[in-house]
Amino acid sequence: MDLGVSERVKPILAQVGEFIDKEIIPLEQEYHDEIGTGDRWQFTDRQTEILETLKDKAKDAGLWNFFLTEGARGFGLNTVEYAYLAEEMGKSYLAAEVFNCAAPDTGNMEVLEKYGSEAQKEQWLVPLLDGRIRSCFAMTEPDIACSDATNVSSSAVLDGDEWVINGEKHYASGAGDPRCKILIVMVKTDPDAAKHVQQSQILVPMGTPGLEVLRPMNVFSMDDAPHGHMHLKFTDVRVPKDNIILGAGRGFEISQGRLGPGRIHHCMRAIGAAEKALELLCKRSLSRTAFGKPLARLGGNIDIIADARMDIEQARLLTLKTAWMMDNVDAKEARIWISMIKTAVPNISIRIVDEAIQMFGALGVSQDTPLAGMYMAQRTLRLADGPDAVHRMVVGRHELKRYGEQNAVNATFRDG
Amino acid sequence: MDLGVSERVKPILAQVGEFIDKEIIPLEQEYHDEIGTGDRWQFTDRQTEILETLKDKAKDAGLWNFFLTEGARGFGLNTVEYAYLAEEMGKSYLAAEVFNCAAPDTGNMEVLEKYGSEAQKEQWLVPLLDGRIRSCFAMTEPDIACSDATNVSSSAVLDGDEWVINGEKHYASGAGDPRCKILIVMVKTDPDAAKHVQQSQILVPMGTPGLEVLRPMNVFSMDDAPHGHMHLKFTDVRVPKDNIILGAGRGFEISQGRLGPGRIHHCMRAIGAAEKALELLCKRSLSRTAFGKPLARLGGNIDIIADARMDIEQARLLTLKTAWMMDNVDAKEARIWISMIKTAVPNISIRIVDEAIQMFGALGVSQDTPLAGMYMAQRTLRLADGPDAVHRMVVGRHELKRYGEQNAVNATFRDG
Amino acid sequence: MDLGVSERVKPILAQVGEFIDKEIIPLEQEYHDEIGTGDRWQFTDRQTEILETLKDKAKDAGLWNFFLTEGARGFGLNTVEYAYLAEEMGKSYLAAEVFNCAAPDTGNMEVLEKYGSEAQKEQWLVPLLDGRIRSCFAMTEPDIACSDATNVSSSAVLDGDEWVINGEKHYASGAGDPRCKILIVMVKTDPDAAKHVQQSQILVPMGTPGLEVLRPMNVFSMDDAPHGHMHLKFTDVRVPKDNIILGAGRGFEISQGRLGPGRIHHCMRAIGAAEKALELLCKRSLSRTAFGKPLARLGGNIDIIADARMDIEQARLLTLKTAWMMDNVDAKEARIWISMIKTAVPNISIRIVDEAIQMFGALGVSQDTPLAGMYMAQRTLRLADGPDAVHRMVVGRHELKRYGEQNAVNATFRDG
Amino acid sequence: MDLGVSERVKPILAQVGEFIDKEIIPLEQEYHDEIGTGDRWQFTDRQTEILETLKDKAKDAGLWNFFLTEGARGFGLNTVEYAYLAEEMGKSYLAAEVFNCAAPDTGNMEVLEKYGSEAQKEQWLVPLLDGRIRSCFAMTEPDIACSDATNVSSSAVLDGDEWVINGEKHYASGAGDPRCKILIVMVKTDPDAAKHVQQSQILVPMGTPGLEVLRPMNVFSMDDAPHGHMHLKFTDVRVPKDNIILGAGRGFEISQGRLGPGRIHHCMRAIGAAEKALELLCKRSLSRTAFGKPLARLGGNIDIIADARMDIEQARLLTLKTAWMMDNVDAKEARIWISMIKTAVPNISIRIVDEAIQMFGALGVSQDTPLAGMYMAQRTLRLADGPDAVHRMVVGRHELKRYGEQNAVNATFRDG
Repeated sequence: MDLGVSERVKPILAQVGEFIDKEIIPLEQEYHDEIGTGDRWQFTDRQTEILETLKDKAKDAGLWNFFLTEGARGFGLNTVEYAYLAEEMGKSYLAAEVFNCAAPDTGNMEVLEKYGSEAQKEQWLVPLLDGRIRSCFAMTEPDIACSDATNVSSSAVLDGDEWVINGEKHYASGAGDPRCKILIVMVKTDPDAAKHVQQSQILVPMGTPGLEVLRPMNVFSMDDAPHGHMHLKFTDVRVPKDNIILGAGRGFEISQGRLGPGRIHHCMRAIGAAEKALELLCKRSLSRTAFGKPLARLGGNIDIIADARMDIEQARLLTLKTAWMMDNVDAKEARIWISMIKTAVPNISIRIVDEAIQMFGALGVSQDTPLAGMYMAQRTLRLADGPDAVHRMVVGRHELKRYGEQNAVNATFRDG
Repeated sequence: MDLGVSERVKPILAQVGEFIDKEIIPLEQEYHDEIGTGDRWQFTDRQTEILETLKDKAKDAGLWNFFLTEGARGFGLNTVEYAYLAEEMGKSYLAAEVFNCAAPDTGNMEVLEKYGSEAQKEQWLVPLLDGRIRSCFAMTEPDIACSDATNVSSSAVLDGDEWVINGEKHYASGAGDPRCKILIVMVKTDPDAAKHVQQSQILVPMGTPGLEVLRPMNVFSMDDAPHGHMHLKFTDVRVPKDNIILGAGRGFEISQGRLGPGRIHHCMRAIGAAEKALELLCKRSLSRTAFGKPLARLGGNIDIIADARMDIEQARLLTLKTAWMMDNVDAKEARIWISMIKTAVPNISIRIVDEAIQMFGALGVSQDTPLAGMYMAQRTLRLADGPDAVHRMVVGRHELKRYGEQNAVNATFRDG
Repeated sequence: MDLGVSERVKPILAQVGEFIDKEIIPLEQEYHDEIGTGDRWQFTDRQTEILETLKDKAKDAGLWNFFLTEGARGFGLNTVEYAYLAEEMGKSYLAAEVFNCAAPDTGNMEVLEKYGSEAQKEQWLVPLLDGRIRSCFAMTEPDIACSDATNVSSSAVLDGDEWVINGEKHYASGAGDPRCKILIVMVKTDPDAAKHVQQSQILVPMGTPGLEVLRPMNVFSMDDAPHGHMHLKFTDVRVPKDNIILGAGRGFEISQGRLGPGRIHHCMRAIGAAEKALELLCKRSLSRTAFGKPLARLGGNIDIIADARMDIEQARLLTLKTAWMMDNVDAKEARIWISMIKTAVPNISIRIVDEAIQMFGALGVSQDTPLAGMYMAQRTLRLADGPDAVHRMVVGRHELKRYGEQNAVNATFRDG
Repeated sequence: MDLGVSERVKPILAQVGEFIDKEIIPLEQEYHDEIGTGDRWQFTDRQTEILETLKDKAKDAGLWNFFLTEGARGFGLNTVEYAYLAEEMGKSYLAAEVFNCAAPDTGNMEVLEKYGSEAQKEQWLVPLLDGRIRSCFAMTEPDIACSDATNVSSSAVLDGDEWVINGEKHYASGAGDPRCKILIVMVKTDPDAAKHVQQSQILVPMGTPGLEVLRPMNVFSMDDAPHGHMHLKFTDVRVPKDNIILGAGRGFEISQGRLGPGRIHHCMRAIGAAEKALELLCKRSLSRTAFGKPLARLGGNIDIIADARMDIEQARLLTLKTAWMMDNVDAKEARIWISMIKTAVPNISIRIVDEAIQMFGALGVSQDTPLAGMYMAQRTLRLADGPDAVHRMVVGRHELKRYGEQNAVNATFRDG
């Protein structure tokens, strides 16, 4: 069970780290300051210039699409190897997109690679892998508990050669981006079927008549413009019959397939964020003085730092082992590990970011440090892709099954 | 030690509760939706109409200026009595201002009442008590650890009949409000004096030449427009000699005087917020279903609810006892209790709001519930008016003094 | 809602405090060192001498039977007043017994006073109140979850003029004491009756044929000899029909009646223990040096001390309010408060004792400090008289009832 | 970084697991019940028979001295491999001794192997490795903070060809065992030398004149007879000059050398204990019913189980990585990792054992489950071999050193 940095990924990891430090981070503040100048839901020329130049450089250097572990189009890394790269990207606001490794595109590309028809791949996977368009995934609904995936109420009905889709989705992340050209929507196609074969996933091009973007949803008071977490309404939206992925009733199965990698990536980026927050916390504790001493020398601050280090190391090892399970055992066993990291890791990254905020005082919640943004992102992870409670249920029931407990849970959750 | 609702305050508490439920809350969403339509830093006509009408009604009903416990202008309540009213106001976004009980005006009015000259009272206290203008308090500075009040670096130098003020302040809450006409600034007037008599507090009318509003500071991604938490710059700002409050070198002493009531009010409002969050959490847990059961019946949710109830009751009693100490013992003894609530209470309210967010899923962080706003406000309380670490130091050292430990801490903090 | 020390109890509290400090504590170590010399289950002559002399002194000074708040035999204090005395007794190992205020006698005496017949009072209450005999209460059974009182499996069947009792009870605290002359046993008398009228409480004199003391049960590795927490077996134990208290089917009702005061007393003593532990912790932190500084100046110790102080103050106020509820509102409402303190308070006292152990290093778990004993006693409180989980359920369901949740819990638990 | 079970250790791990389950555990209760029958400080004939028979069987099967990783006498496993075996042994009370892998002998044998002279090895290492005698290590002193190893006050003075030793040591674990023939004592030999070369370690045969066993020290109320944690007094104890290990002034250096392996072993056994506790907790939660449901279905129990599983997996991975560091990087780097596990792991095992106790109710603290014993053992780990606070300081300061903090800590602690 080798959880270390492989020889193969070692030079790539170094390159990615250097690229982030030297190319991306120096431009982040400038990029960020442009948000909301002019139309919040359009990129400024300068933003486009920054982003596209960085993407071109990364692509030229071969630092592109690391996430796609399998298939002919895959980069060829295993999950453990990619995990180290994802952690690195977690330290920067823009990095994942620069390397074409940003959610929800990664999940969508994996789904298309694994389950898409050749025509679907040609039309959507190729431009996505190329970084020319973006995409979104519409799963969560406003009026139901989506932690239980069988609750999905949006519907698609076959009418001749077309699916007719009705319903509402919200928190469709990325649907605000003007470059977003395609969404995958989770709908019920057969309410009378067995519980886990009622759902399907269908490709809907943005701009299809009947598909309205009602409003941006906030994450705390942040709208993440122009990316956006949009509230969508489908009113008799018609798409060709062939836009269904894999076939009717396979939606739940596809969800299961996309769950694993997406959550591992989230968790490794969360560890990167925690490392960044701890670095900021430590530097602040050494540079800021009160009562005649650096903060690091006051009260329990040294304990806070020590606990953060221990928590990060444990969280990273758990995530790496989960990635290893993903690569080496069957998906069913790996799922328990994924539920473990999905619960454990964000709780740790939130706590560390929160401690960093406290060490910075008012600046910690201000626009002058990245901490408040990191906090909101990490906090949201405890809700996205299944809330803690559902993942704990999965882990707890699996544990009890060793001793004869029968009712294993069979849940699926929103993926982003 | 009577911590109950007194006979005197009982009918007032009922009136205030009813006023909030029937008059204020029904208009809150409309008021809130107007924020940021047009110039973020101006009130819309509708906002002004809502607010002023509510204020007039409250004033006409005699529900006005409860906070001022002492003096001829005081409402006549003691701190325990006011605490119950403050809790009630903590459940609503607009309530404190409607009853003219909003920070930082309350602290400023108390300072003027207690320490101001007759001329200062006439010019600033009267219109503030009347609700005609608003005010702010500029204490925290960007480059120093203000948890140690002796760190203040802004200066005022007497030049003839005028104080000449230079320096920067940030997080001056309320300085964005177009109705804000006066600020109290904490400055160093004698850097060579003994540690706690270097500071003074000086009245500076908004609009005085040399006083610039550099930018709004964010609290998470929220700018609280048009109230605002502003970054101010003082460049040779000149005000008359008589604008000093109480006299040169008395700034620290005044801070100590304003600390107590302000923090008790914050804590009681925090308890009101925690009650509101628990109410929302419970209702959600009963109305939302997953895996065939209401959320209240799943996992540890009942325990979360029980713990929240226990925490609230303990926090309320601690705050009421602190209010009682404020009324009945000397300020020095009360200060330890104030440090206790200032640490204990926001940690509890944050935890409960956070659990409520988790129970609501994505809606918990959205604009469709008040929870994200409550979270940001409560979280900020752990930083404002002295971070937890400083208050723990006060409480811990006081405890050790019983057993012979000598070095009592003598700190003062930002008050808002 | 006066939660302070009343004028009436103020001088008594001073007397009790002085008696404990000057009379009891100086003899504790000697008393304690005699345990286990000779027969563990007999008092040594010196132990008897110490205890009886102290009891005589206390009785002569009128410091006796404070716990009995009601009735002609009552001391005349209300629950709030007694709570302050109980806290004081919680600081000493022997104090409760010296003032004839020790469990489980107090609960038994209250039951007899409130529900006993005149004959029962004459025979058992009088010598108990006089401190001439001791008693025990047999409720918990080895093979069932007694957190659900309806689970009781021991039975009593009427045969002519006698109840014939069969079953096993364990953790019958005090049954090892050679002075224990009477036990109250909870049995099922009518398994077919409605759920809460199946149980009865019956008086069984120690030494009745068929009543065997199987063995002492340990609390951690401690057997608490000669008090003991005994495992008892009832094999056709016959007692007169009139030994039933209140009547057949009233057992659950009696339990409810004894629950309140007993738990409040436990909680107030727990606060006394927490205060004692914090005192020891503080003194140690000032007297012991490492790395050139007193421990109080190292790492987060000052925060630990501050948190302990805040926790104690909150726990005390919650318990005092519960006592006040007991005195001033109906028992049903008070029950929720009792479940709150029964959960919240021992968790706090355990944490503080645990921190004190950590501050003492190896001595903290040794026989040279009272901390390990305090730990074991406080930890057991989370199991006795209903485990935390059951009390949380009571509190959580009551909270939900405000919003329409119907199924209130109706549980009763072991009382000691 | 392979943290998995190696091919080499896989069959041994299976054998050890089977041996524990089939040979050791079935005899444990009988062995345990004999403690304290007759003289507490002697083994009964039956205890000797059980233990020696098991040891012979283990030795014959080649399951012996796994811990000794290095040297000609070593078993040949690396630390990661041994860690898996240590975890297995942590599930049983007797297992470590049966495989001759019990503390403090393992630490002593490592010290002799690594630093002992040939004569010392011949005389003491050979019979220890053979399981014919036992040993102890006397480090901690009653009156000083031994978390700071430079505090040691016991002294040894060279008088001709003999060291003359004076001082007191307590918590000398294993010194009560009649088979204990040798102790290693940490003393000051040169109080005027530089801070970390004042100490030496000297071999003292049990029974040397002047060496008194004053009393057993308790761990909670447990004396661990006949193993014992003894309070020793040295009064002019004379041993030959050559009994010093490595040379005068090398005591601190030797301590550093023994720290690593010993703490890794403790932590892996702690994980074994946590696994055992979780198994008992789960089984109990499924078999015990209250309010009509198995406990596993009530309240937050499923969450408790899930959290325990996540904590164990993280703690195990952290410990395995620490073992890997021990094998693959320099000791200085490994030391930080050892401080991490020494803090993180016992806190986790304590919490899980504590939850198991709670799930068992009164039985959890009784002699009928191994939980109370496990609790006392795990809790003591937070004090032994350096309290948490010191290890957190090591970890925290190391973290800060990355950012320029200079004062690295250089501490050593009691090893057992």
